[in-house]
Amino acid sequence: MEILIKNGRVIYDNLKVVEADVYIEGNRILEIKKGIKREADIVIDAKGKVVSPGFINAHTHLAMTLFRGLADDIPLQEWLETYIWPREAQLKPRDVYKGALLGALEMIKGGTTAFVDMYFHMEEVAKAVERAGLRAYLGYGMIDLGDPEKLEKEIKKSIGVLTFIENLNSERINFIFAPHAPYTCSIECLKRVRGLADEHGKMITIHVAETKREVDGIKREYGKSPVELLDEIGFLRDDVIIAHGVWLNDKDIMLLAERGVSVVHNPASNMKLGSGVMPLKELLNRGVNVCLGTDGDASNNNLDMLEEMKLAALLHKAHTLEPTVADARTVFKMATLNGAKALKLNAGVIREGNLADLVIIDFNKPHLRPANNVISHLVYSANGNDVETTIVNGEILMLDGEVLTLEEEKVMEEAQKVADKLHEGG
Amino acid sequence: MEILIKNGRVIYDNLKVVEADVYIEGNRILEIKKGIKREADIVIDAKGKVVSPGFINAHTHLAMTLFRGLADDIPLQEWLETYIWPREAQLKPRDVYKGALLGALEMIKGGTTAFVDMYFHMEEVAKAVERAGLRAYLGYGMIDLGDPEKLEKEIKKSIGVLTFIENLNSERINFIFAPHAPYTCSIECLKRVRGLADEHGKMITIHVAETKREVDGIKREYGKSPVELLDEIGFLRDDVIIAHGVWLNDKDIMLLAERGVSVVHNPASNMKLGSGVMPLKELLNRGVNVCLGTDGDASNNNLDMLEEMKLAALLHKAHTLEPTVADARTVFKMATLNGAKALKLNAGVIREGNLADLVIIDFNKPHLRPANNVISHLVYSANGNDVETTIVNGEILMLDGEVLTLEEEKVMEEAQKVADKLHEGG
Repeated sequence: MEILIKNGRVIYDNLKVVEADVYIEGNRILEIKKGIKREADIVIDAKGKVVSPGFINAHTHLAMTLFRGLADDIPLQEWLETYIWPREAQLKPRDVYKGALLGALEMIKGGTTAFVDMYFHMEEVAKAVERAGLRAYLGYGMIDLGDPEKLEKEIKKSIGVLTFIENLNSERINFIFAPHAPYTCSIECLKRVRGLADEHGKMITIHVAETKREVDGIKREYGKSPVELLDEIGFLRDDVIIAHGVWLNDKDIMLLAERGVSVVHNPASNMKLGSGVMPLKELLNRGVNVCLGTDGDASNNNLDMLEEMKLAALLHKAHTLEPTVADARTVFKMATLNGAKALKLNAGVIREGNLADLVIIDFNKPHLRPANNVISHLVYSANGNDVETTIVNGEILMLDGEVLTLEEEKVMEEAQKVADKLHEGG
Repeated sequence: MEILIKNGRVIYDNLKVVEADVYIEGNRILEIKKGIKREADIVIDAKGKVVSPGFINAHTHLAMTLFRGLADDIPLQEWLETYIWPREAQLKPRDVYKGALLGALEMIKGGTTAFVDMYFHMEEVAKAVERAGLRAYLGYGMIDLGDPEKLEKEIKKSIGVLTFIENLNSERINFIFAPHAPYTCSIECLKRVRGLADEHGKMITIHVAETKREVDGIKREYGKSPVELLDEIGFLRDDVIIAHGVWLNDKDIMLLAERGVSVVHNPASNMKLGSGVMPLKELLNRGVNVCLGTDGDASNNNLDMLEEMKLAALLHKAHTLEPTVADARTVFKMATLNGAKALKLNAGVIREGNLADLVIIDFNKPHLRPANNVISHLVYSANGNDVETTIVNGEILMLDGEVLTLEEEKVMEEAQKVADKLHEGG
């Protein structure tokens, strides 16, 4: 299919905003210039609108849409033990499918085009995402807690998901290994995952240094920080994406930089759970690739990457009292280009030859006028509801606010039913 | 006019969510119950929607919409001196009118029903707000810098605005005295304002303790904190609304509580400018009435009170590392009831007899489903774009997303022209 987007303000390479048409052929951006004259199956008029790279949500748990607003304003352990885990234990594969569909719908509406997910019943997530049309990196969250039998089961489940996804043979759905965290996975588990990732040519994502409690625990057990521990066993390479990275010391940061590890910042979740504040400035100064993620809906409570950008930009200014930290351009790159870099994806930038993963945002709204500074408006004033059109892999998932791949009403109703059932049972 | 809102989920007294109809007669809420059978001029079906008190933005500078995205990520002084002040100096009354109209449009769209504003050319702001239909408390920002001649001029301008607003004879537009801050106003100015407020029966709003620099300066000059200084001259009473209140010590907080002063929290602005973090928990523990505000668009960069609630809820959890701080209900009250309290307004709560200042929010959206926790969703997941209908003083300003009192396109175009002109000149 060919798509021609006319007269938009295009966020081009290096975040330069140019007035141009964008021509998409198949799953690629073929041409970007003024007055393109080519034939196309669909012509979209983007006058007064901004054509932006789609957002890459580098850390989330899609099906947790089901727990949105279930429990807020309580400490992490109580939240997990009293509210989340008992309900997760009840989740059937079909429930995860429905939760994932709701999450996918939310992402399409908010302009996310690709994401990294860690959860369970991931075959169901893969099915939901395949249907929705998003690009995804899906991993089964492995937890062995040092139990060798459990480890074998977890590896089997992971390989099961890998095989399922390979068999889907989708251009968009990818497998990623997802050991949960250094405090829930044994050294043996982490080493096995590293080996399997090499063997299968897959990437790895893992929660690291999210809470002080975690770091203190690892230090007590191993006498070193989680990052040092991971490095010592040869785990850290440039195919590893760590989520959170809140409690990192200088040595950790140096190691992450040296190994080319990507780190995902989740400001809303870290703030909401009182986890702490990532040393963003130090990470960026050392050249670490920092991406952006929303974490799951239960601890955010949405998947809105535009809102997440503002949170990132504001949090670090408040934390350091330096208004120059986490400037709009830096944060915009975290939500787009850096995510693509982490995933080795030719996306995150609207450029000839790149994947056609992009969104159109309506700037004809009072909170986006005067429209003098596109990047600033996207970071500081826009939100997910401003996204009008979402294109992934050259396919239009939402056009002028209407989602084409999913029946919105039905997806919402089905997820509501699952949540109602869990609520009664919980 | 009578309005009947059918089948909504109504946020009633004490934030109890009830399924009910709401009947509005004139500018008041007359009845709230299931199955109201009365005749009405307009019947609104709110099935699947939430009827919420309108938001009260207790501190902003409306016409600064013109400077949205003009300059971000730079220190406060440079921001003011290089970007804002030179442009403000060029602003003609008509420019302020157009900027204020854009701000009013933004507020209506985002569900704000009342606000407190401090700026200049306030007659123009009054005209814009009168036309838009919002409820407002408008004050001329007085700055005398210790110059007695300037002081007389500032008082004359203030009284001019007061007279202008009295002559408007509007139910919605109110005058408020607005000396800029203790560091820009002389003691004499502050005393005169206090006397004039008593004489005319008007309230006062003032910036206090926004930055450490300000507090240090006042301490050097007067040997006491800004709050102590204001208290010593008898300035602080329960008709005073101070904006920011970032750098407050225990004694300040006690004084504010004793005098019944209201304090406006502006999380986005304080974060963006790196001003510091308000001691919210301590203020609330002492029983101080804390409201919520967006500050001006130049330092936010929007007027979205739903977004502001999330920022408030998250900021204090991140700052204290306590996830129980600034819970959703507390923050929701800051944005509604507490603002009304500060303004001695029978609003901020949907209750029989109260002013009909309310909004209808569409919950039939993926990021607001499953719809199990209304207050949580409003604070943590919704944004201004989710507001569908805005009613102020019994008048419908926006119905199903369409603003009835202003021509949206024209308002945006006119403000754009002003901004373009300033940009060329600046």
